[in-house]
This record gives sequence, structure tokens and C-alpha cells, in this order.
Amino acid sequence: MSTIKKFEKPLGMRDTFPETYEKIETARQIGRNFLRSRGFDFIETPTLEYYDTVGKASAIFDARLFKLVDSQGNTLVLRPDMTSPIARVATSKLLKEKIPLRLAYSANVFRAQQKEGGRPAEFGQMGIEIIGDKSVFADAEVIITAINLIQEFGIESFTITIGHAGVLEGILKDYTENTDQYETLRKLLVERNYVGFEEAVKSFDLPQVKSDALLQFINKATHLTTIKDIEQYVRKNDALEDMIQLSKLIEQAGLSEYISFDFTLSSHMNYYTGMLFEVYAAGSGFVLGNGGRYDGLLQLFDSDVGATGFSLRTDRLLEVLPNKEEQEDSTVCIIFEGHEFSKALELATTFRNNGERVTLQSKDGLLNEEAFTKLFGRVVYVNQEEGQ
Amino acid sequence: MSTIKKFEKPLGMRDTFPETYEKIETARQIGRNFLRSRGFDFIETPTLEYYDTVGKASAIFDARLFKLVDSQGNTLVLRPDMTSPIARVATSKLLKEKIPLRLAYSANVFRAQQKEGGRPAEFGQMGIEIIGDKSVFADAEVIITAINLIQEFGIESFTITIGHAGVLEGILKDYTENTDQYETLRKLLVERNYVGFEEAVKSFDLPQVKSDALLQFINKATHLTTIKDIEQYVRKNDALEDMIQLSKLIEQAGLSEYISFDFTLSSHMNYYTGMLFEVYAAGSGFVLGNGGRYDGLLQLFDSDVGATGFSLRTDRLLEVLPNKEEQEDSTVCIIFEGHEFSKALELATTFRNNGERVTLQSKDGLLNEEAFTKLFGRVVYVNQEEGQ
Repeated sequence: MSTIKKFEKPLGMRDTFPETYEKIETARQIGRNFLRSRGFDFIETPTLEYYDTVGKASAIFDARLFKLVDSQGNTLVLRPDMTSPIARVATSKLLKEKIPLRLAYSANVFRAQQKEGGRPAEFGQMGIEIIGDKSVFADAEVIITAINLIQEFGIESFTITIGHAGVLEGILKDYTENTDQYETLRKLLVERNYVGFEEAVKSFDLPQVKSDALLQFINKATHLTTIKDIEQYVRKNDALEDMIQLSKLIEQAGLSEYISFDFTLSSHMNYYTGMLFEVYAAGSGFVLGNGGRYDGLLQLFDSDVGATGFSLRTDRLLEVLPNKEEQEDSTVCIIFEGHEFSKALELATTFRNNGERVTLQSKDGLLNEEAFTKLFGRVVYVNQEEGQ
Repeated sequence: MSTIKKFEKPLGMRDTFPETYEKIETARQIGRNFLRSRGFDFIETPTLEYYDTVGKASAIFDARLFKLVDSQGNTLVLRPDMTSPIARVATSKLLKEKIPLRLAYSANVFRAQQKEGGRPAEFGQMGIEIIGDKSVFADAEVIITAINLIQEFGIESFTITIGHAGVLEGILKDYTENTDQYETLRKLLVERNYVGFEEAVKSFDLPQVKSDALLQFINKATHLTTIKDIEQYVRKNDALEDMIQLSKLIEQAGLSEYISFDFTLSSHMNYYTGMLFEVYAAGSGFVLGNGGRYDGLLQLFDSDVGATGFSLRTDRLLEVLPNKEEQEDSTVCIIFEGHEFSKALELATTFRNNGERVTLQSKDGLLNEEAFTKLFGRVVYVNQEEGQ
């Protein structure tokens, strides 16, 4: 591979320089403290997992997985999400007796990219999972926690769009006539291809009443904003009842203004079985985070206790965090000659005891004193200081 | 791979559960705050790097690298250390005008394992690199920072053993007669095979004076504790002069009690060119951390500005951190019936405003109320609270 230059990184891989690092780390700490205060316990899982366990369960397209083969011939993946590793952990012996579990994470996940200049192949996610609680209260807790977390970051303008895998499945199955039609429509909704949806419905040669219902659904559902608008419109079932109650709980928490409903919302993650949602913040065209109920995933790990959760992308969070005033560098740089080392140490200790950030630099080690000292808000020379 | 069970993880991969996670995270924060206060800026580099750049530069044995091939046919590695990625970053355009750079990191690195029950294949490292300062003051700063960092963690009993790649090379080359002999002896020292070293020396058929000098060296060097013991013993050269000055600077910092010298110290990392050291803490048989001057690594990235640094392993840090008294869980668990959701939220807010950590749990979602509530230091029922 002689084309690789010395300073290159693999496709989609990025370095995080100090200024950005500090912003991310500050956000991580805010998130961590907040989620802990809400009773969530942080865990870390390995970067590498077996393809046959977490790799397959994650429902990420195969082409997006980084795969490798270990010394024993097993295929491994770099974790493409955190939900499936946490499902693995939570349903293993160690934790399953403590359900409902409230777990949190802040970790990088990996998605292979095919071309330059595209999306990151490694990015941070922060999120929670409530495992072992099938009630709508757990779903409400997830959405309320997501809203409160975003508020905690100081983000004021954002929307959470909520759908329901079961409600959508009910509608699509009611008004189609076979599994192929159902799958076709579901796939088009995952792609948000509403025009394709309408064309497909027309091509199916359905009875007029079914065809009309589907076309009406696709036109209306994406514009609905409250649960009331949909109630009259969708056949009553347990899934819809859950959504009505969820809406009420969020209202009781005083957070209705942040949510809207869109029953066309669908995910390529086919383990979602209940409510699912996406978070959009003003100032970014990308989904800031998403979540939902994924009882189906736990079943892959032989557990039927139910699970619900959400995650935010820390890289996208940076784009929408309120701008803080840029602070000037307040680091004190002490420059010393070799024979002044003791004095320089003493001086540094004095500054440090005073809460200052101090860089200690010998003149001997400097190639370009002017360029170096320019980086600091304050530069002190040991002898100069002595003379004051 | 039908042998993989659902809950298994790849060889050497581990989950970190909440209790351990909190200890690690606390240590990371202490380290982060400390290193920042000393003027080091944190950066993050990608988990994946090109084998041809960072993979080869890292000097980790090929069998220990996790390798994969990307969609373009390039071989990638999971970073086996942080020093070589940082060398890549520091010598690229973006940062090289700001030298001397003081960079810090806290990240996981990867080393493939061959058998079960062995060492971790993924572990955390926290460390610093000073890039662009060839003076002995930078080496002194690295060692002093390492000592002060370990003290910051509350660890009192530890030793830093310092050697010098140049001094060792001088001794071995002076008293051997060809490169093969030199390489053989160096390799035996990397493996700490002192018996093998003696046997090899005897087998070389060297002139008596050389043979005696090498045998005397191997017997004495591992027992030397101060630089004075070695001064009379090793041929004077720049490398030794550096070590004498380094010893004086550490003395001036009042930290001599923590260091000792061992000129047999050698590393399989062949990019070390100057001083190198290892950190041992009481209570662990493993090296807690290591470091040294690695000007040779920067040369691989076309830079001749010099670099020195160290890193600690966060997993081993946990083994030697002073035991804090185990605190009882102080989380307040509020249990509510469905119709009490609003009241439960209010109550939670009251506790939270009071600085308490609160878990809110509906009765509906509980499978085993007794087992769940047992996990908390304090359990409050909404109605009960109302009645008080």
C-alpha cells in the first residue's frame, strides 16, 4: 500500500485536538453527572465483540461493520452500537437478578465508511438503557430523561419526534394484503421515501378503501403533532393505548412542548418493538440522538424482560451546544535557565497552590522562544520575577 | 463458529461493571485535572490506524496487533499504544509549529492475546508526551510529573527505576566484538534473562577484560540505587552526563527517594534513544507504567525534534489505589403506582434539588419488588411520603 502517506488516517477516522477535546469532555462530564443523578449506573464494554453475538444482534448493515478474524479463527467486530453489547451484559448472569436495570454509557462506536469526506467512521455515543421494565413508565422515563439531559447541556431549541413500531406495523398490515407489500412499504418508510411509498401503494392494486387509507395515512401522519390527531385515525389497540398514556405522562412532566408524533417513523434497527423516537436540535440537520423500546433485541439473548433506551451522538452535540465565550488561555508559562531549575519549581508551586495552570519550560529546550511564548496568556521569567 | 455462546466475549476482552467503572472514572478525572494543571493538553486519536504508519512505528510485535483490511484493501490496526499515534499527530502540519508540545491522553489500547485467562487484550493508558524538547529538563519534567501524578492518586509506596538506552548501548558495544553479540545481549536484557546474559557472555569467547566487565556489569547494575554508584563504573559520555544531570534535577525537586537506577533496563520498543524508566507500586507485581525518551520514533515521521513521555495503565492503577471506605448506596428509590406519576415526579425533584441521587420506579414495571428495593439505601413510597 505505497499510496499511504505518513500522516494519513484510515477513511472516516479523525483526530480530536485539545480545544474540541475539552468541549467534548465537558459535555461528557455534564451528561455523566446528570445521568448518574437520575439513578443510571455507567458501564464499559469491550471495543471488540464476536460477530456471531453482538455483531449480528446490532442490526447494522454488514458493509458498515469493521470485521476482523482473531487468532482462533472467530470473526470479531468493532462494536457498531452500545445497545447490543449492553443487552449481552444485562442478560448474562451477573446483572439479570437486579432488574429493572438502569445502565448508562459514554463510548465510541464504529461504522465503516466507503468514501472520503463522508461521515465519521468512529464517533461517541452517550446513552441509557432501562432493562427489565415493560411498562410505559419506563418509556416515559427514557423520553423525559432525554429531554432533561438535552436541557442540562443548555440546548433550548429541539424536538423529539415519537413513533411506534407496533402502531405502524398494525396500520401497514391492516391495509396491505401480503408480507411482500408490508415489507416494501416498511422499507420505504425506513428510507423516508414518501413519494416511493405512494407509488408503491398505487402499484399494489389494493381495494380502494385500503389504498385510500394508506395514502391518507402517509399524507397526514408526517404532519401530526399531537396524539389526539392520530387517535381517531388509527385502529385502537394496545400499542396505541400505550402511546396515549405515554403522551399523558410527558404532559404531566410538563414537557409536551418538546415532543411531536410521527407514526411513519421507522428504523432499520428491526429490534424496535414499541415506541421509538428521534431527537433533532435547531442548528443541525442531523439526528442528534434516538431511542426506543427494543424488547426484540433482548429476545435474541434469550430474555423476555423488555428494554428501552436512547443515545445521543457526542460529535453532533458539539454542533448544537450553546456557544460559550472563548476564554483566553490563562496558563502561566514559566521560562527558566538551566541553573534556575529549583527556583522555577518553587515559583511553579506557588502559582499552582494558587489554582493556576502552569507550564514549566527550560530555555535549553526551546527552538523558537517567541513562537512558543506567544501561545500563553502570561509568561514569567524566573529571574524577572525574582527582581520584582 | 458454533462454539461461541451468546454471552461470550472475544479473548482477553472484559466488561467493566459500575463499581469498577466509578473507580476508574474517578482516577481518570484526578489524572486529567492534575495533568492539565501541569500544562498538558489532552487529545484523542482514532482507534484504527494504518498498519503502514502507526502499526509499524509502534514497535509492538506483529502477533500482538489486531489487524483488519478496510474496503480499499489497506491494512488497519487497532492502536497498540498511544505514543505512535501522538507522534503522527504532533509531527503533522497542524501542531508542529507549537513545539515544545505538551500533550496528554487517556485512552484504551489493544494487544491481541493467544490464550484464555491471560492478560487483557484492551486496557486503558493515561500519559503525557513532551514533543520538541531535547533537553534533559524535559526528561526531568516527565519523571517529576509521573511521580507527582502517582502521589496525586494517593499512592505512597512506589519506585521509579531509570535506565538509559544510550548508556546501555555504549556499555554493550564497548565490551562486545560484533553486532550479533550486541544484539544477543540486548535481547536477553529486554527479556530480563540475566542468567542467559551470563551464559551468552561466557560463550562469546571474548578477551578476559571484556568478559569480566560485562559479568561485573550485570551483577552490579541491577543492584545500583544511585547515579553515584554507576559513575565510576561506566565510561563517561554524553548519555551518562545527561543521567547525572537528570539525577540532580530530581534531587532538586526533592523526589530522590522515589527513584533508583538500573542500567540493564531495556525495552523491546526500539525507538527509545535516551533515558527510560519503569514504575512499580507496592501491592502489584506488574509494571504500573513506563516511559522514556524516544527521539527515534519521531524520526520515523521525518522529524528530529525529540520527544519524551510516560504512561500509566489505568487497570493496574486500580490494583494499587488506596482503599477508600466502601460507601453505602445513598440513592433514594421512589416507588410509585401508575396514577401517582405526577406526585412521584414532584417528590423526585424535591430530592434532586437537595442534591440526592434518585431512581424513579413504577410498581407496574417491577417483577420482584423485594429484590429490587433491597439494592437501595433508602426506599420511599409516594403515598407513604404523603402521609408523613
